[in-house]
Amino acid sequence: MSSNQRKATAEVLEPAPQAENIVNGVNVTALFQTVEAVKVNPVIAKFRFNVKNKWLDGAHSRSTINGFHGAMQDIERSRSFQLDADEHPILLGRDQGPNAGEYLLQALAACVTSTLIYHAAARGIVIEEVESKVEGDIDLRGFLGTDKSVRNGFQNIRMSFDISADLSDQEFEELAKLGPTFSPVLDSLTSPCHGSGATHEKEIMRGALKLLVDRQAMNAEGVLQHVSCRQEIRNKHN
Amino acid sequence: MSSNQRKATAEVLEPAPQAENIVNGVNVTALFQTVEAVKVNPVIAKFRFNVKNKWLDGAHSRSTINGFHGAMQDIERSRSFQLDADEHPILLGRDQGPNAGEYLLQALAACVTSTLIYHAAARGIVIEEVESKVEGDIDLRGFLGTDKSVRNGFQNIRMSFDISADLSDQEFEELAKLGPTFSPVLDSLTSPCHGSGATHEKEIMRGALKLLVDRQAMNAEGVLQHVSCRQEIRNKHN
Repeated sequence: MSSNQRKATAEVLEPAPQAENIVNGVNVTALFQTVEAVKVNPVIAKFRFNVKNKWLDGAHSRSTINGFHGAMQDIERSRSFQLDADEHPILLGRDQGPNAGEYLLQALAACVTSTLIYHAAARGIVIEEVESKVEGDIDLRGFLGTDKSVRNGFQNIRMSFDISADLSDQEFEELAKLGPTFSPVLDSLTSPCHGSGATHEKEIMRGALKLLVDRQAMNAEGVLQHVSCRQEIRNKHN
Repeated sequence: MSSNQRKATAEVLEPAPQAENIVNGVNVTALFQTVEAVKVNPVIAKFRFNVKNKWLDGAHSRSTINGFHGAMQDIERSRSFQLDADEHPILLGRDQGPNAGEYLLQALAACVTSTLIYHAAARGIVIEEVESKVEGDIDLRGFLGTDKSVRNGFQNIRMSFDISADLSDQEFEELAKLGPTFSPVLDSLTSPCHGSGATHEKEIMRGALKLLVDRQAMNAEGVLQHVSCRQEIRNKHN
């Protein structure tokens, strides 16, 4: 029985349905219903998100974000979000938006925060305030290609969180682990790799490049997982 | 003679200084000056970006992005950028912004696009259009903690690019490699790991948790690099 059906039944059977339990702004009643539904039918938990990006000029591009797939359906939002990226003039842009690295840090800050909030809510822990700063160090010699020993990406990312909650020290320690333990973006950036390392496949077709970078990675429990970044590039002229 | 010297000389010798070379909206004259300056003094290439995030309610948080460090100076923008993150109601949010995973995909789309544009500009390749779609698959059983064998993060990320440029097929193949080859965000997400794997250190203090996740990774050239995600969490009550 879906939650909608259950709700409809409840409305018929009970004139005053049970109050929903809201903690930290999260509907914990619905959260537990979701967890139970996923245990019965795991495919409900499979989501696919996307962004569509259009280059405008120089470093300036604009992404549109709306539809996604999840809970066994294609979902359209009532409105689209637009995100502009650019570089500061010191990096030869016109500062029409944060740069791509800052978007990465934003993803991490938002993810660890909401993960902390949801998992605290599920445990009945009331959070008063969360503020965080996420910063990343990068050496642009990688990007510029002037020194091949320098990696392109962030060399260090630091997160610091200030959290207010009425808890004992021990409870607070448990709370502080929730964000890092369950955050999807933190995992996407830090999941440790063991074993066979990287395999690269490259398939070049007429006027197009397909680049497939696969890596085998184990998660914290030692289960082999598949992480891939697949890229398809087409020449519009062909 | 450095380009700065050349420019200074030109200004003395010629009342009308040489026009700057702009390709794809990128000032290639300034780009080459930057590359030359970095070769002389590599510390110019060290940048540090940051976001400051504040939790609002439920999955809704807001990041402020402004200052950063780079080119040996602390830089403040003339205006701050604000980015709201939230979840769609199906994930128990109020849809006040893209979610954290979508921000991650945005970071990747924007980064590969601007990297392609800059490196094409440096090679004198005029790009007419770039459009891309970046999508990521995630199984939320990881986030929910209902199945520990499921990773928290994205399982697959696919990028597809449509690029218009007046090039031969071979030139186009070379062009298509530029984004993935030099993109900082792509590298942050996919850099293959070899060697000693992950080390974890944890230092628990009174009312606070310091979590340090370090990993040793080698880059594509086999040079040992240091990638760390350092987290400090403080209880505002203490």
